[in-house]
Amino acid sequence: MASFLLTNARLASLEGGASAYGLIDAGALAVIDGSIAWCGAAQDLPDTFDALERKDVGGRLVTPALIDCHTHVVFGGNRAREFEMRLNGATYEEVARAGGGIVSTVTATRAASEDQLLRDALKRVDALIAEGVTTLEIKSGYGLDVETELRMLTVARRIGQERAVRVRTTFLGAHAVPADYKGREDGYLSEVCLPTLEKAHELGLVDMVDGFCEGIAFSTEQITRVFDKAISLGLPVKLHAEQLSNLGGAALAAGYQALSADHLEYLDEAGVIAMAKAGTVAVLLPGAFYTLREKQMPPVELLRKHGVPIAIATDCNPGSSPMTSLLLTLNMSCTLFRMTPEEALSGVTREAAKALGLKDCGVLRAGFKADLAIWDVEHPAELSYRIGFNPLHERIFGEIL
Amino acid sequence: MASFLLTNARLASLEGGASAYGLIDAGALAVIDGSIAWCGAAQDLPDTFDALERKDVGGRLVTPALIDCHTHVVFGGNRAREFEMRLNGATYEEVARAGGGIVSTVTATRAASEDQLLRDALKRVDALIAEGVTTLEIKSGYGLDVETELRMLTVARRIGQERAVRVRTTFLGAHAVPADYKGREDGYLSEVCLPTLEKAHELGLVDMVDGFCEGIAFSTEQITRVFDKAISLGLPVKLHAEQLSNLGGAALAAGYQALSADHLEYLDEAGVIAMAKAGTVAVLLPGAFYTLREKQMPPVELLRKHGVPIAIATDCNPGSSPMTSLLLTLNMSCTLFRMTPEEALSGVTREAAKALGLKDCGVLRAGFKADLAIWDVEHPAELSYRIGFNPLHERIFGEIL
Ligand SMILES: [Zn+2]
Ligand SMILES: [Zn+2]
Repeated sequence: MASFLLTNARLASLEGGASAYGLIDAGALAVIDGSIAWCGAAQDLPDTFDALERKDVGGRLVTPALIDCHTHVVFGGNRAREFEMRLNGATYEEVARAGGGIVSTVTATRAASEDQLLRDALKRVDALIAEGVTTLEIKSGYGLDVETELRMLTVARRIGQERAVRVRTTFLGAHAVPADYKGREDGYLSEVCLPTLEKAHELGLVDMVDGFCEGIAFSTEQITRVFDKAISLGLPVKLHAEQLSNLGGAALAAGYQALSADHLEYLDEAGVIAMAKAGTVAVLLPGAFYTLREKQMPPVELLRKHGVPIAIATDCNPGSSPMTSLLLTLNMSCTLFRMTPEEALSGVTREAAKALGLKDCGVLRAGFKADLAIWDVEHPAELSYRIGFNPLHERIFGEIL
Repeated sequence: MASFLLTNARLASLEGGASAYGLIDAGALAVIDGSIAWCGAAQDLPDTFDALERKDVGGRLVTPALIDCHTHVVFGGNRAREFEMRLNGATYEEVARAGGGIVSTVTATRAASEDQLLRDALKRVDALIAEGVTTLEIKSGYGLDVETELRMLTVARRIGQERAVRVRTTFLGAHAVPADYKGREDGYLSEVCLPTLEKAHELGLVDMVDGFCEGIAFSTEQITRVFDKAISLGLPVKLHAEQLSNLGGAALAAGYQALSADHLEYLDEAGVIAMAKAGTVAVLLPGAFYTLREKQMPPVELLRKHGVPIAIATDCNPGSSPMTSLLLTLNMSCTLFRMTPEEALSGVTREAAKALGLKDCGVLRAGFKADLAIWDVEHPAELSYRIGFNPLHERIFGEIL
């Protein structure tokens, strides 16, 4: 059934500037060869589509399928025991001495085979897919050596083959400094990170390049080296910026026309303005904010004021956000960041597409992919309001129709 | 298959006082006629059980099935639009003028038929069951008139027939003051609440009696009237207490040997001591704490110090906790209340059973119901660590074996 007509649908097109959510109560949507051919009010449907097979969705809500634009879903092991140690009163030092922290994930990821990494990641990806996700970004960054970084990206690509989901890969060699390069960040960049990026790019494994700009990771000067290499390879960039302090990472990223700057709790107005000028998307990650019990909220009001597009994502990772629910991310963005339900839903559709540089999904529009989510709800606000409930009725992924 | 032997199981018996989680790495568990006949280390298994059909669980973790001991899962409508109004900047007054708040749920519940209430509630109950819940408590309290309170309790009983789940019903007529009795709380109790409780009890619809003791609801004196009636009918009591202020509700409840006092953010040490003496369980509700963005944490340290049993629950309700995930409740109790993963898991098994007055479930023990959850995890801490992920492999409900 590569072509059909959805009838009796409440459409939330998520077209910006339209009515709230781009809502059309009595809508129809024509799909031809996996793409949206037409969508709008049923009464305006042209005769052209009369011959299409009809699929009555019973008045249900149809939205663009969801996009998780920031994940670290490929990794070895988990950090449940570390989570437990902390709650039993262990200090960060004690956790570190017991091999905890990102080091433990790097060790476990290096030790895991490609198939093991794939098997573990697929469980998490399946949880996302079950909530209507058709596109997800996956970062490397737990290898921090040539071989493991390439293995992570290979697994990410394989996920796109094993499941009906579009995967966008991001090279994140500049995620952390491996133990044997501690204090020699620039050496790590020259000897490992940048050569690995070149190699991964040659192998066709990289869609985007990311880094972690923070006191505990890489400086703006070091990120500049990574970005310069990315640009020289023709790859777009994005950045983990202003999560724990304000280093000016977002403005740096904007200077490189970054697709997005992510986290942003400590972003100031100058950074917001730089992002607005560059069209860089703000990707907010409430799961990490929640897990780390942060108090500093990202500057949502300033982002609105300057018209910066806001996306949200799970940040699925074993340490600061072991979360595999994009719907819960909607609720957290509202409850914790005071975003509106409409901003939350735009943030996992229209704006998340922008954060990945995708121009053919994220809204219901003729010519776009027929990536659709059909929900058992009356109003789109319910998707943000509910906690731990999945009202997905059906997911449609245009590419495999 | 009413009788069988689980082999190759990692057992978390949740027996108090044993090793952490009552963990037995290489365990076996014999079920005969829906009850646990034996459980322990596989090497100690008596020959008696050799004839049982074997069920190899592949090294997976087996825990008692989960118990959600505080829910308002039966209600009409939802409050998504109100959630959205607030996030769009509406004041509480504006929300109230638009018909929001608990009043809107009372109106929608009164307007809903029994079948409609059942249909809506079953979606939520199914979400709980999918996470391994076999026992759940359901409160009335959105009718606030004779007919609707009875209808809610009837629906609660029907849920226990429609699904493989044990339902314990709680009469919560003293949940709020209906609009037509505003300022005449005692009149509402005399004319509606207490007569309805008698009627519901006659009909066999009530297992326990609850109230909401708070400035915005009922005073301790008024709760005393409800409790006196409950005791005269031979029904155990519990109480919503100390959620928004300290009125001494928990101590009052303890004086009635209450099964539990619930919420408890503002509980003081005198209240804790009273609960400890009475054996009253503290039921903490992190979903409401999260949704209402409370800052005052329940006194977990004091509850530990005085040995008060701590349970946790979803508090599933349309206003302050539209949450249908008990697993997420585990994570929230750790992340927000700094409970340990072991306390969290005990809180939805052993202690939740106590909060419902049940003496035959909540731990893996010979003679108890074979209510079991089999999980695709290596260590029980993973159940608390993950966010928005359901690793349930299989749920076993002793009563329908
Ligand atoms: Zn990240
Ligand atoms: Zn409650």
